[in-house]
This record gives sequence, C-alpha cells and structure tokens, in this order.
Amino acid sequence: MHFTSETSSDGVREQLFVLGDVPGALWTPDGPAATRPLILLGHGGGEHKKEPGILARARRLVTEYGYAVVAPDVPGHGDRPFEPEYDALATANQARIAAGAEPAPLLAEFHALVARRTVPEWRAVLDAVQRLGHVGAGPVGYCGVSLGCGLGVPFVAAEPRVRAAVLGLGGALASAEEAGRITVPVEFLVQWDDERVPRGASLALFDAFGSAEKTLHANPGRHGEVPAFELDSALRFFARHLG
Amino acid sequence: MHFTSETSSDGVREQLFVLGDVPGALWTPDGPAATRPLILLGHGGGEHKKEPGILARARRLVTEYGYAVVAPDVPGHGDRPFEPEYDALATANQARIAAGAEPAPLLAEFHALVARRTVPEWRAVLDAVQRLGHVGAGPVGYCGVSLGCGLGVPFVAAEPRVRAAVLGLGGALASAEEAGRITVPVEFLVQWDDERVPRGASLALFDAFGSAEKTLHANPGRHGEVPAFELDSALRFFARHLG
Repeated sequence: MHFTSETSSDGVREQLFVLGDVPGALWTPDGPAATRPLILLGHGGGEHKKEPGILARARRLVTEYGYAVVAPDVPGHGDRPFEPEYDALATANQARIAAGAEPAPLLAEFHALVARRTVPEWRAVLDAVQRLGHVGAGPVGYCGVSLGCGLGVPFVAAEPRVRAAVLGLGGALASAEEAGRITVPVEFLVQWDDERVPRGASLALFDAFGSAEKTLHANPGRHGEVPAFELDSALRFFARHLG
Repeated sequence: MHFTSETSSDGVREQLFVLGDVPGALWTPDGPAATRPLILLGHGGGEHKKEPGILARARRLVTEYGYAVVAPDVPGHGDRPFEPEYDALATANQARIAAGAEPAPLLAEFHALVARRTVPEWRAVLDAVQRLGHVGAGPVGYCGVSLGCGLGVPFVAAEPRVRAAVLGLGGALASAEEAGRITVPVEFLVQWDDERVPRGASLALFDAFGSAEKTLHANPGRHGEVPAFELDSALRFFARHLG
C-alpha cells in the first residue's frame, strides 16, 4: 500500500493510496490511532472514489460516527486506465438496446464481469486498510447503489468481515444466487420510478437476500433521485449494526 | 369534552376523556402550557386507546419530542359499547372466508363502514384537543397501521390539519380513491410476509398515495411483526415534517 497524498480538513484526514492496481481514498478522524468500524463505499457507474456523493457520506461517517471510510476506484473509472474490454461490451450493449434488447440483463452481465475483479481487489483493500493503526480490525460495513450494488452483492456475499450493507438501485438478474448467501442485515433502496431497473427486478433482489433482517426503502422518483433523508437512514443503520 | 381522570408519571401527563360518544386518552409533557405538534394515534383491530404499542409511541413522542398525543377508541373497541352491526358483519365475513372468500376485500369493506363514523369523530377530537392550552393549534400528524390504516387513509384524506402520516399494513382495495387525495408526506409500512394483506395490495396502496414525498418501508415477517426500529424511524419522520 503506497500513499500518494495526505490532507486534513475540518477534523477529517484524507489519504489517497494505490494498492497494486487499485487507487483509493481513505478518510479517518483526525486524532489518536484507534480501532474503529470501517465502511467501504462502492461508487456508481461512470463515477469515482471522490464523487460528491461519496465525499458527503465519508465526511458524515467520519465526523458524526468516528468511522473510517475507504473508497476504491472500479476498473475503467477514476484514476484507473481505460478498459477496452469493458468499453467494447458497453458499446455492443448500447447497440443491442437500440435494437430493442432489455437493458437490465445486459447491465447485470456487465456487473458480473467487473465483479470478478473488484471482489478480490476490495478484499485486499480491507486487508491493507485494517492493518493501519488509525483504522484497525473493527467491524466492516458496505455501502453502494447502482453499479455499487451490482458489485456489492458478490462482495458482501464473499467477505465475512462485512457485517451490514446498504445496497440498492439494482435488480436480481445477475446476483440472486449471491444475494441468497448474504445473511447480514441489509438496507435496500428502491426508486419507485427507476427507468433503468424494473421494479419487479428490484423487489426480487430484496426477496433473494438470505438476511433475517433486511429492510426495503422505496421512494418515488427516477434512478438518480434518491431523497437526502435516506443518507440519514443509512448512517443510523450502520450505527445500529456496527456500533 | 369531559375529563374522567388525570395522572402524571415520568414527565408525562395522561388525561382520559369522553367527547360525545368517544372515549380517548391525551398525553402531554408535564409543565407549562404551550402550542405543540399533535399526533393522533389510531389503534389496531381488537385493540384500544391504551394498548401497549400506543402507550410506547405516546411516551416517546411526549418525552423525546415534546409533542401532544391523542388516541380515541374506535367504535366497538376499548371502553365503547358492543356494536351488534359490526359484530354481525364480522361473523358473516368469517363464514365467507371459511367458504373460500378472499379476506382482503371483506376487511376493506368493514374498514370503510367504520370510517364513516371515525372520520367525523376524530375531526371533532382534534377540534376539542387543540382548544386546550397545553396542546394548542400546532401541526398535526397521524399514525396508524392495520385497522389504523384502513381508518387513517380516509381521515388523512379528509382532514387538512394533518401534515404527515405514518400508515401501513393495509391494502388499496377500499381506499385507493381516498389515498389519491392524500398529498402530505407518508411513511408506509409493509410486512413482506403479511398473512392478512396481499403484498400486491400493499404496493398498490403505496402507489395510490398522491403525495410527492412518500416512502415505503418493507420488512420480513408477518402482520404483527413490524421491527422495533420502525418506531424510531416513524418518530424521526414526524420530527422532520412537524418540527
């Protein structure tokens, strides 16, 4: 793990790092080293580790809850190189959708392809970050919607350190089997008028989670219109389960 | 409005009253008179104004938020006389269900019948309670599930003083038209494995609300198994909308 920058502002220390091929950002409270809960944030499609939505969640988790937060760049996103394979697939998918294909199965197939890389990458990020004295081996949470859900479901299913997950804006197509292996508490966001994820596919993914405690929050609006109060709810969800 | 008892415990003043035919309970903070938000709580079928779930919600609304809370008995419940008409209908419905009829439409029909009495009763309760110096004419919220939803939907649709409502464990059958006239924020609870309300009817009622801000919370479990954290969420919902 190689740190490339460190800054501090309003009580939040931000360290940018590279771990193997993976650039990431780590946010922790300024102050003495301590073991603390760690949230891994998965960004959305076309976004990156320092997207405004990621920064807003990280700042509140650090300042209000004293958590550590880490966000890696997904392959082909942020500071990572262009991925010709993904780009070719995205172009082919756009042509198939223009010719009348359903977008949801194509998106799910794409997420499954990317997850084969991100699951081991994110597990390695947890390994490295939890070895730092200012993070330590506390309980882990995962938070990601849209692409962050498509990649998050296989990650949470594979990673026993994750004890609670906020997921959403995703459907069951690619990940129902993996969702069934998730048994930790899940808060799952649905946009009632999502133009990308059919409502039935969202409800089917919620159905598929193996968790005894899972809670679905549905709100009116399109894919990108999750209301601000859901961030408050997600923070309280983590506080309830990670302390 | 005739008060029949007054007690005080741990900062909460409880007054039992009768208004016309309607017995009710009013909870307010001990202390000086002030205008404050008022929540009307609608109890469930076979329950009454001092059910443990009502008392728990009332205590927290009073002690944590400084609200006033009022809970009337529904006709045929609590301290109200036996209602031969309702009883005959309930008996007939049981026979129809035993003979293979769907329970949901019968329940909806029953709720609509009772609501013809409770809507004017509850509006009169608001009138009387808001004239008291220790309640005043602040913003009003409504909270009720199951029977409290079946009666709550027509009440909230009819009563412009209600500015936010927590509803749930109810379906669209009887009340879709009234739900469409509701435009205030709604938090709507669904039990994912509800044995009384079909999931599709619940989702259809959520769909039917005319509110720009409405949020659906679904959790696994049967009709009576709403998780405890939904009470926290309901209290925050009222705090967000009523101040």
